[in-house]
Amino acid sequence: PPGVWILSEEIRDIGDLGARDLSGRQPDTTNSCRRTEPLPLPDGPVSILHFPRNSPTHTQLSSPALCRGPRTLQARTVIQQCSQAKVKIRPALDGAEAQWAEIQEGMVVYVCFSREATENITDEIANTLMTTKLFRKDTRHWASVLELPGSVLLVPQDSLLGEPVPKRKMQFKGGCEPWWGAQLFSNLVSTCRELLQGSVKCTRAGVKVEQGVYGQKQEMVLSCAEPLTVLLEF
Amino acid sequence: PPGVWILSEEIRDIGDLGARDLSGRQPDTTNSCRRTEPLPLPDGPVSILHFPRNSPTHTQLSSPALCRGPRTLQARTVIQQCSQAKVKIRPALDGAEAQWAEIQEGMVVYVCFSREATENITDEIANTLMTTKLFRKDTRHWASVLELPGSVLLVPQDSLLGEPVPKRKMQFKGGCEPWWGAQLFSNLVSTCRELLQGSVKCTRAGVKVEQGVYGQKQEMVLSCAEPLTVLLEF
Repeated sequence: PPGVWILSEEIRDIGDLGARDLSGRQPDTTNSCRRTEPLPLPDGPVSILHFPRNSPTHTQLSSPALCRGPRTLQARTVIQQCSQAKVKIRPALDGAEAQWAEIQEGMVVYVCFSREATENITDEIANTLMTTKLFRKDTRHWASVLELPGSVLLVPQDSLLGEPVPKRKMQFKGGCEPWWGAQLFSNLVSTCRELLQGSVKCTRAGVKVEQGVYGQKQEMVLSCAEPLTVLLEF
Repeated sequence: PPGVWILSEEIRDIGDLGARDLSGRQPDTTNSCRRTEPLPLPDGPVSILHFPRNSPTHTQLSSPALCRGPRTLQARTVIQQCSQAKVKIRPALDGAEAQWAEIQEGMVVYVCFSREATENITDEIANTLMTTKLFRKDTRHWASVLELPGSVLLVPQDSLLGEPVPKRKMQFKGGCEPWWGAQLFSNLVSTCRELLQGSVKCTRAGVKVEQGVYGQKQEMVLSCAEPLTVLLEF
């Protein structure tokens, strides 16, 4: 019978409106793919299936719409193509020069983990970031950062979970705890590096994965031949 | 009785999977806020209401969850705080120097309109962009671009509607037709300018609204004291 898949994100949003105390809550690392149950509908003309907007595992399924339910938002990323980008990771102090993490041709990835983020999400993100054909080579051909080959600059960006609330304010809730976010971010960087090192093309080209730092003011400069911004959710 | 609000976005997604021919379709400028009907549910323990994630009109309603249905995505914006940003709007040609649209302190806004975008959405976007407290002044205080006062650089960015599809490809469908997107973008720039000119603080500070151009390679440079990226959907 047709069923309505209740978006787990909606449930999370409703939860946000209540006064849930999450302090001291340990992240759940066992359930990487929380699914809600389909809700049976009465006989009627309407049959709705939710196709997850960003589902990198689509390729593994012959009939994804039928076997996958919607998933909770675990991470949000904004990707920008760049010809050069750098982020200050250590300010000029005690006579020493400031230190920058810098890349040339490639992409900057702003990353934010939600409170639902589990350990294995980082593999999925890394895999998607490195192998999805995000870059326009010409009008008809697109390439992944591994195919280019290009570098990657990962920047923690908790503001990506911000939402407008009344009185023209923004609310930055729903992010995971900083210690866990820092851990996930670190795992993500490692996995991206492994994927890069596994590519002969990339090793030869000498491209790299660089990173910004959590909880620190990060001065930043980005230049690109053409802005190309993509939103990917996990 | 409790009802399930079917996300109109889901319906749009399903439409995307079919072979809808949209060529020659005129944009619908009469229906700015398409709502789907609530679907009655059988008696049961589950009652779901969808709270729109980004709804700038929340403030006008005493009980938004009860009187508002979900809305179709009309536009997606990614906003980045900047200390300086510029986009090349005319390349160096025939001995003349290249021309840049440039701002200092303020924000860069990447904008993309969906095929559901209607004429009056630009007022809502402009109003939200200019008056929402998006900027961190210090750890506890946030300000809008009008309050700062800051400048705005609007950049057309159709890639924002990109979605991953099988075989590691991206699909850039769902955007409105270029002529209509260019028109909406132009309206958005005008409305932002009007709001800026209506602010004594901004007029005195000499801040401005600049813009990139549609359908042209736009070289770009952005620098910021601290990256702050926000996603706003309309």
